[in-house]
Amino acid sequence: MADRDGLAVGIAGATGAVGRELVSLLEERSLPVGDLRLLASPRSAGEEIEFRGSACRVRELTAETLQGLDVVFFSAGSGVSRELAPIAARAGAVVIDNSSAFRMEETVPLVIPEINARALSGIRRRKEKGAIIANPNCSTIVLLMAVTPLHLAARVRRMVVSTYQAASGAGARAMKELESQAREMLEGREPRPQVFKEPCAFNVFSHDTAIGEDGYNVEETKMLHETRKIWGDSEVGVSATCVRVPVRRAHTEAIHVELEREMDEAEARELLTAFPGVALRDDREENRFPTPLLAAGRDEIFVGRIRRDTSCEKGLVLLASGDQLRKGAALNAVQIAEELRDRW
Amino acid sequence: MADRDGLAVGIAGATGAVGRELVSLLEERSLPVGDLRLLASPRSAGEEIEFRGSACRVRELTAETLQGLDVVFFSAGSGVSRELAPIAARAGAVVIDNSSAFRMEETVPLVIPEINARALSGIRRRKEKGAIIANPNCSTIVLLMAVTPLHLAARVRRMVVSTYQAASGAGARAMKELESQAREMLEGREPRPQVFKEPCAFNVFSHDTAIGEDGYNVEETKMLHETRKIWGDSEVGVSATCVRVPVRRAHTEAIHVELEREMDEAEARELLTAFPGVALRDDREENRFPTPLLAAGRDEIFVGRIRRDTSCEKGLVLLASGDQLRKGAALNAVQIAEELRDRW
Repeated sequence: MADRDGLAVGIAGATGAVGRELVSLLEERSLPVGDLRLLASPRSAGEEIEFRGSACRVRELTAETLQGLDVVFFSAGSGVSRELAPIAARAGAVVIDNSSAFRMEETVPLVIPEINARALSGIRRRKEKGAIIANPNCSTIVLLMAVTPLHLAARVRRMVVSTYQAASGAGARAMKELESQAREMLEGREPRPQVFKEPCAFNVFSHDTAIGEDGYNVEETKMLHETRKIWGDSEVGVSATCVRVPVRRAHTEAIHVELEREMDEAEARELLTAFPGVALRDDREENRFPTPLLAAGRDEIFVGRIRRDTSCEKGLVLLASGDQLRKGAALNAVQIAEELRDRW
Repeated sequence: MADRDGLAVGIAGATGAVGRELVSLLEERSLPVGDLRLLASPRSAGEEIEFRGSACRVRELTAETLQGLDVVFFSAGSGVSRELAPIAARAGAVVIDNSSAFRMEETVPLVIPEINARALSGIRRRKEKGAIIANPNCSTIVLLMAVTPLHLAARVRRMVVSTYQAASGAGARAMKELESQAREMLEGREPRPQVFKEPCAFNVFSHDTAIGEDGYNVEETKMLHETRKIWGDSEVGVSATCVRVPVRRAHTEAIHVELEREMDEAEARELLTAFPGVALRDDREENRFPTPLLAAGRDEIFVGRIRRDTSCEKGLVLLASGDQLRKGAALNAVQIAEELRDRW
């Protein structure tokens, strides 16, 4: 991937919320992009998105437009990934897929670079063979960035997590719905839900994914299975309640962990401070803790409210906020590409 | 209290969010109100509030204006309650205090009528001697209404709770701040927090009460101590994370309970359905669960997302929403008065 003339990079789903974030991250960061190909559904083809000062025209996403790329970021939903990501990979590209389509496939690495970059070691260099790498779900990323520093020191046995998830997780349309509904409700009008079943402004509601046999919704189940895969620990328990809140683009999570041994706040703070990508905001005096407004547009996962769980001997409690579109999606994907480039 | 001509009822803090809710509940419900005396700070004295079709003028709250009342609802903050509630009680009134001032005093009953009305048995009839009865904190009421049906059948040992708390919990000014900030942010302006330290629109933040030595804030600590007092169970553990969300007037809570024995969903549903004041909203097919918008203005505590905790053998998970101003404050207080009247 260390092409002297830069990489041919594609974004499948370029006009979506994550797609646009990918474009701006590729402008900011160090991945050497030679050619950027923006791809989207026929409906969005023809739009123009600025990249490094020039307008870049969006082309239709097809098997043909996926040829000749070194890296393709997919963020156009599971259906599209399932159909087209293997085609891009067969054409020689490294696909970094933001959907859930391949996350649980045994041969597909599921990677948060700060945590399990080693899972990338099997990926060969480009032009030899393409590959698919999966980007974890946003809620899993925020959770594991906050908890892995503790897990590495004292093994987490069980986590009880409640999420406060932003509208951005349901895409650009959901972010617009939040704003238009807020306007309607401020004028005393009835909200008219379209993207979500429940009104999303001045309301909170159980995450809008399907509920499985065990009563957990898909978002909650992802947090369990993805945690187990990323940590390589098939025994850790994760019981999550995923809830959407009227916030634009960062997720917050209240996390209660049970460890294998006791850990005091000072040790937890030290471990979190030392971990890349984590920032402490834990000022009890001033009541300053992680908030989604603080985390919005930022790369770090903010962690605070660190305390011993008074109801559980080896328990700790944390509050974490992280930008759903950045570390929760686009940034993590770009970091995977950067990690691969550094290794080759 | 079964005065044929009706009771002389006072509301201390009548112009606040809870005070206004008390007025409208006294209009709707069966407590025989002969004379209603609305009391507030000098700043609000002189305002008029409608009660049963006539304008009722707000008088200044003083030791003098508290004389000659049968029942007084206090909802003007802990400081005011601490100073004036004992004066009202000495003058012969039954004080139902919505503040935290007396909740943990051993001789003061802390009551949710559906759960521990028996704690009122020591309160004598009016004109013999006044008394103070404490109304629990709103978060405790929502939690215990949802969990007590399970507790009575299978004893709760530990609860992990995350709250999604409405602005109404911080009063009428906070509700206005939420709306004005939402307007500002929709226009692209910076929010200017006044009631809260953090912006409250399109944001969530750790509850704005002081943090204690153990790292829990006052709101979280109340949930532990009040639960223990109401249940008469000094061993139950409650580890709460209290968070404010941009919602007007109902609180939501994600509740993970650990019971003394296993309980399946069917049994939990049956117990919850049979419990007065609880309404099930648990439609997995349609993804319809409790929301604060649904609970707003309603008397019931809505419970749903009932499921076994896959990370804990004897665990169950619930989601509950309840109107903070009604069952979480004013309604519970009025129910206490009704309960006393029925007993005398």
